[in-house]
Amino acid sequence: MRQAGRYLPEYRELRKKAGSFLDLCYTPDFAVEVTLQPLRRFPLDAAIIFSDILVIPHAMGQEVGFVEGKGPVLSPIRSEEELDALSSDGFTEHMDPVYRALRGVREELADDVALIGFAGAPWTIATYMIEGGSSRDYPNAKKWAITQPESFGRLISILENRIADHLIAQIEAGAQLVQIFDSWAGALPARFLTRYSVSPIARIASRVKAAAPDVPIIAFPRLSGPAYREFAALDSIDGISMDQSISPDWIRQEIQPLKTVQGNLDPAFLVAGDDGMERAARDILASLGKGPFIFNLGHGVVPQTPPEHVARLCEIVSEFGAAS
Amino acid sequence: MRQAGRYLPEYRELRKKAGSFLDLCYTPDFAVEVTLQPLRRFPLDAAIIFSDILVIPHAMGQEVGFVEGKGPVLSPIRSEEELDALSSDGFTEHMDPVYRALRGVREELADDVALIGFAGAPWTIATYMIEGGSSRDYPNAKKWAITQPESFGRLISILENRIADHLIAQIEAGAQLVQIFDSWAGALPARFLTRYSVSPIARIASRVKAAAPDVPIIAFPRLSGPAYREFAALDSIDGISMDQSISPDWIRQEIQPLKTVQGNLDPAFLVAGDDGMERAARDILASLGKGPFIFNLGHGVVPQTPPEHVARLCEIVSEFGAAS
Repeated sequence: MRQAGRYLPEYRELRKKAGSFLDLCYTPDFAVEVTLQPLRRFPLDAAIIFSDILVIPHAMGQEVGFVEGKGPVLSPIRSEEELDALSSDGFTEHMDPVYRALRGVREELADDVALIGFAGAPWTIATYMIEGGSSRDYPNAKKWAITQPESFGRLISILENRIADHLIAQIEAGAQLVQIFDSWAGALPARFLTRYSVSPIARIASRVKAAAPDVPIIAFPRLSGPAYREFAALDSIDGISMDQSISPDWIRQEIQPLKTVQGNLDPAFLVAGDDGMERAARDILASLGKGPFIFNLGHGVVPQTPPEHVARLCEIVSEFGAAS
Repeated sequence: MRQAGRYLPEYRELRKKAGSFLDLCYTPDFAVEVTLQPLRRFPLDAAIIFSDILVIPHAMGQEVGFVEGKGPVLSPIRSEEELDALSSDGFTEHMDPVYRALRGVREELADDVALIGFAGAPWTIATYMIEGGSSRDYPNAKKWAITQPESFGRLISILENRIADHLIAQIEAGAQLVQIFDSWAGALPARFLTRYSVSPIARIASRVKAAAPDVPIIAFPRLSGPAYREFAALDSIDGISMDQSISPDWIRQEIQPLKTVQGNLDPAFLVAGDDGMERAARDILASLGKGPFIFNLGHGVVPQTPPEHVARLCEIVSEFGAAS
């Protein structure tokens, strides 16, 4: 997760040349290069296309920017009327640079390295669209969901369609696995989780499966706690990505019998390195490595991460793989 | 949770007079008044003393301030040597205004309204002390915990002692129930949860129980997911407060057989009001109201909350109580 990014000096260098963060996402040459940077340093099993979950509202006509040190800033949508202004016209054309980047990466990747496409889930994207950026309590998104369930459902449904389209198009452009990130699933009140996270993800996954039956789909409903089990029960999902808060023992007992699991080293261990990282990684591998498992972090790589710690982590995981 | 606060015009009025947020906490007349404000409006079963979890590092000599719109700002502690500067001298004198406020509130409260004292848990307080305020990823606190477990353990242990002292002194001053808030428990990597959240809370609770066997203790390890069960298994804890992400059905099956549970309406329902709030509150009551249960929110009241919605929620809960 976030294997390309600010912790790599070559990324920071290219970022300067590219101008804005969105220019980086929408210029295929840049996006290809940034996607490949970590692969040149580390013997990773997969590359994840460099993009952002907010290309979806952007492609529908919402203003999206990225402010250094602050994160994404959107012109917030707060009313049903504003939903009418969201357009699916020209969606594919807008996204074309992303698909060209996927084709470019696939051409350069070794055959045994998988290419991963992704999208945000409807709830998580909706929070950014409604709050106008990151949020702590999501007051506007939640209020809309509670007080106007019909129009909120309409927004979720619009997003489902665009997300499914986007994932299918990424597969057509070379993605061999897709991930759906519901990063703020844990902020939903429990009574809304099925309606606004589990079911939308299930519908998106079913549409993607219908178009590409052989492409695995991983869902990451971050911080959803015991409710990870609801996602694991979905037929259309092949894998569940787990956050750092969930113990590997619980994952092995509750999720791994149903699905491939992915996770869940806290990115802080990658910042710390040394024995602490090694012990934490080995314990996760020991607990989950006997079942269907993809070693990964529980959240994205953070900018403070020394690249040599990533290299060491790759060695630890490879050694485990070779020995088992 | 946060029943006194910015959503009340009389609070905002008094806040202006008091000067800083800490002046409000440390001036007994103000703290008494602010604690009682919600009780004058709403027929609540309990009052929670108006204070802050950061009075503990402040009492140990760390600089603590509150910046409007930004939250707490502390001079961060990042090394073992800085731990030596933390002092327990004069702790009780520093906290005396808090204890005087508790006595003042107890005098004014009706006999059938309980007075609640509280403290933050060691991990949550440590994050503020080390990051110097709120944080998204807790990079410094986690790095310290990973790379220097001995000195991090020393900080946790210092905090345990001060927190236990503070809770016992609050009970001596009239608190009839105490809560321990581990608001960022969900950010801990799973492998650290027992060491830095469950065990410290257990040790604090045991000390408080030894001093005051009849005073109930509620723990709130927010967003700890399936691991809420670890806290529910603790002998020294009487109740578990649950966040909004956990379904009432799971709570009824997994936690309520072991402990009194408290929770877990999302504060967003209190912002929305009307039917949405009513249905959500009634569903929680229907699911949990037959076992040992304290109706509460899953997190603090937010400033956007219309006070009349709080009044309506009190009616809904009272009607349920009267009918059952």
